Amino acid sequence: MMTHGDKMKRSIVLLSGGMDSLVTAAIANRESAELCFLHANYGQRTQRKELWCFERLCEFYRPVQTKVIDLPWLGRMGGSSLTSKNYKSTGDDQPGQIPNTYVPFRNAILISTAVAWAEVIDADSVWIGAVEQDSSGYPDCRAAFFQAMQAAIQQGSKVANIELVTPVINMSKKEIVEQGFELHAPFIYSWSCYIANELACGTCDSCLLRQKAFLSAGISDPIKYKE
Amino acid sequence: MMTHGDKMKRSIVLLSGGMDSLVTAAIANRESAELCFLHANYGQRTQRKELWCFERLCEFYRPVQTKVIDLPWLGRMGGSSLTSKNYKSTGDDQPGQIPNTYVPFRNAILISTAVAWAEVIDADSVWIGAVEQDSSGYPDCRAAFFQAMQAAIQQGSKVANIELVTPVINMSKKEIVEQGFELHAPFIYSWSCYIANELACGTCDSCLLRQKAFLSAGISDPIKYKE
Repeated sequence: MMTHGDKMKRSIVLLSGGMDSLVTAAIANRESAELCFLHANYGQRTQRKELWCFERLCEFYRPVQTKVIDLPWLGRMGGSSLTSKNYKSTGDDQPGQIPNTYVPFRNAILISTAVAWAEVIDADSVWIGAVEQDSSGYPDCRAAFFQAMQAAIQQGSKVANIELVTPVINMSKKEIVEQGFELHAPFIYSWSCYIANELACGTCDSCLLRQKAFLSAGISDPIKYKE
Repeated sequence: MMTHGDKMKRSIVLLSGGMDSLVTAAIANRESAELCFLHANYGQRTQRKELWCFERLCEFYRPVQTKVIDLPWLGRMGGSSLTSKNYKSTGDDQPGQIPNTYVPFRNAILISTAVAWAEVIDADSVWIGAVEQDSSGYPDCRAAFFQAMQAAIQQGSKVANIELVTPVINMSKKEIVEQGFELHAPFIYSWSCYIANELACGTCDSCLLRQKAFLSAGISDPIKYKE
């Protein structure tokens, strides 16, 4: 549970298009015989760019199966600045506070969907690029949540052996960049900006986290930022 | 957890249109200050009729908020005779076997969605009409699964106090009919048939279970069956 020991037969990777899920895919690629990629449009502001990244990553990693699902009702439900018309930072770095970019229980919905697909296509693992330590304090990005979801999967799915894998959960953003660099992950096809679909803004909390990570790893970020 | 003690402030009921969820709604109605109803179209063969039932139940119970979500990708994913073109009974009553009407990890997807909505509208409970004992052996209808999901909700959601309530989990189908009758649940607006959208077929496993339940409770089923 939550570790990656033996080589997986068939792995489903939840691929948002962000750099954490990209590096998760790179690790899954190393440790799986077959990859399957799952992406969700949920009305996030940068959904067009994230889907573009997903498509490029499908071309790059050549998964045996891919699936894009639409959850427009999740964005319409509200409760997140990521899916609302206007983004306003609440300061992702304030300890103990959940940023307004948190999307209600999104990871549970995505994991449940991936497990449903895993049952149908006989995959033995579901990979998600959640980060706990060096992240923004989302409740559904904590190791304790994934442990509880793993138990729910074991109890409630048709096949009891689907493993939930979170390979970057304890990494810092710097370590994620280093790990991706080592595995030749194509960071050019990853997107972190909360706001823009063309040039990354370079000023939102997520752009700042990404830039800091590349800077501290001493690696240059291949994507372009607004001047 | 899983019991219903004090009166709930605001309850979200997952309402499929079947009789188990209808009776769950009737119980939630008695035990909640405010009701909210959530329904999902997921490509099931009788989705049109189930949505019709949902709409009538909204008129009957007058929830303060309602939401219908579309999960067309769940049906397209396959893995269930409920969402495939042709239904063929595998014998829902064979012990130890999961019937082919099982929809992959559906309840986890629905519960996760309801919890997301609960966070946004500040509901304190999510109600689901799953039946374990007198049911068809679906893995995501077992009490152990709901206990595990309750733990995942506690760990992964923004508010830690959303309660997952399964009031009919240990009832027999006969007891569910009796309970609904006592609470004046409008069974005329419930649908069990796996196949038809107009007159219930009276021959699929679900129609047979329903007819047996009404018969053993000594209550007449108000819906019409094909001659």
